[in-house]
Amino acid sequence: MRELAFIETFLRENAAYVRERHAARGQVTMTVKSNASDLLTEADLTVQQRAAAALAEAFPGDRLVAEEGEHAVYPDDPNARCWVMDPIDGTNNFVRGLFPCFGISLAFAEHGVPQAGGVMLPVSDHLFLAARGQGATLNGSPIRVSEVQEVGGAKVEVEFGWTTERRLMLERAPDLIEAVGQVRCTGSAVVALCQIACGESDGFVHMTLTPWDYAASQIIVEEAGGLATRLDGGPLYLFDGKQGLMVSNGALHETLIGLVKPR
Amino acid sequence: MRELAFIETFLRENAAYVRERHAARGQVTMTVKSNASDLLTEADLTVQQRAAAALAEAFPGDRLVAEEGEHAVYPDDPNARCWVMDPIDGTNNFVRGLFPCFGISLAFAEHGVPQAGGVMLPVSDHLFLAARGQGATLNGSPIRVSEVQEVGGAKVEVEFGWTTERRLMLERAPDLIEAVGQVRCTGSAVVALCQIACGESDGFVHMTLTPWDYAASQIIVEEAGGLATRLDGGPLYLFDGKQGLMVSNGALHETLIGLVKPR
Repeated sequence: MRELAFIETFLRENAAYVRERHAARGQVTMTVKSNASDLLTEADLTVQQRAAAALAEAFPGDRLVAEEGEHAVYPDDPNARCWVMDPIDGTNNFVRGLFPCFGISLAFAEHGVPQAGGVMLPVSDHLFLAARGQGATLNGSPIRVSEVQEVGGAKVEVEFGWTTERRLMLERAPDLIEAVGQVRCTGSAVVALCQIACGESDGFVHMTLTPWDYAASQIIVEEAGGLATRLDGGPLYLFDGKQGLMVSNGALHETLIGLVKPR
Repeated sequence: MRELAFIETFLRENAAYVRERHAARGQVTMTVKSNASDLLTEADLTVQQRAAAALAEAFPGDRLVAEEGEHAVYPDDPNARCWVMDPIDGTNNFVRGLFPCFGISLAFAEHGVPQAGGVMLPVSDHLFLAARGQGATLNGSPIRVSEVQEVGGAKVEVEFGWTTERRLMLERAPDLIEAVGQVRCTGSAVVALCQIACGESDGFVHMTLTPWDYAASQIIVEEAGGLATRLDGGPLYLFDGKQGLMVSNGALHETLIGLVKPR
């Protein structure tokens, strides 16, 4: 699949740059967006600009939907071919933190559903790839979700996100927070979902994610045997508004959905 | 200080073993303790047994208080010389997870207060050390807490811990969870506190920590210029029961305490 090959090449070519910028994070140029924790670095911008340029050459006419600037706009036709990117998911972790919990995320979508996706964790050199119907891999080896079936033994990412969404999480998910074996909040949806895909974690809940936060890792989880749905259990489309997101190893999905109060 | 030298030597000597067991974590022998998420591995036990043996030789008569088995008992005299250890803090992360968020933690205490402490993060090879009045270091270089003063720009670890403590966190800390810039829950108090000490994070709140979870990293934070108190702001003693824990860069301390509802 030509799109998957593009994704792999792009991620491999940009990993070293992001790794180098992270190592020099004390010197990275940064601006604050909607609030003091909503950061934009030169690295986010550079990676996104490189993707836009590479796509214009390889797939002229295809739309890029991405987190920053002019690209942060949903397409007029949600079914058309498009690319969905977060240049650095987990920008706060890119800027601060002993563990490099951030990733470059790029997906190709059609009919509002990701058809191919890749996530690169540049510091630890983990490259996750998947294409519809072809399975998911980590550094070339097939991966598979966990077999955890008991919620009390499950590790679940409760992604609190921005301050504006936290009240919703506290109101809708206290039962889930109390029930799961381990609560985690790493601050990167992409990292959280990739951990589910390779069996290192079991679930993920978020109230209002935007498509670039999950497009690539959604298909990676699905192709690894897991499930990704809206919080009401309905099918996930990339551009149908902020309906929240539940991702799991599949076995736990119904239980986790049942632990979230309806709106 | 002889105690600090002992801590450093012990941590250096045991890092490779823990790193190797983590790399082979699929084969690590494990038992379940109080619940499905409360795990004990052969690595926890081995490190603790080695510490007990080394201490018996170097400091005969000194008491070891540690997380596992017969050592998980508070001393009769809380003021006496003692050693406080968590052989692996973050055992769940040791067993699962793409990022090695766990550490070996060893402190020397007297009068119920840590006098020297060390934390080794074995995979990333971060060694944190501190002694009372002598400052804190990371791999030999002095470290200092962050200067973040606005709660909206702060990164704060909300440690949900075991299922039995979660209701308390949800009841007492919703205002804190809503107010801070970034919520994190990495599943290792030791890692969270060391990140505060080196300025990569700004705060930490927990409802019911036991002394081995914070003895070493408490003094590392304090010697790096931060603060560690009970949740009511009162002074922290290692063995005075589960009064909860607030740790910060100092500048944010009063604000964070004010965001936690009294019992």
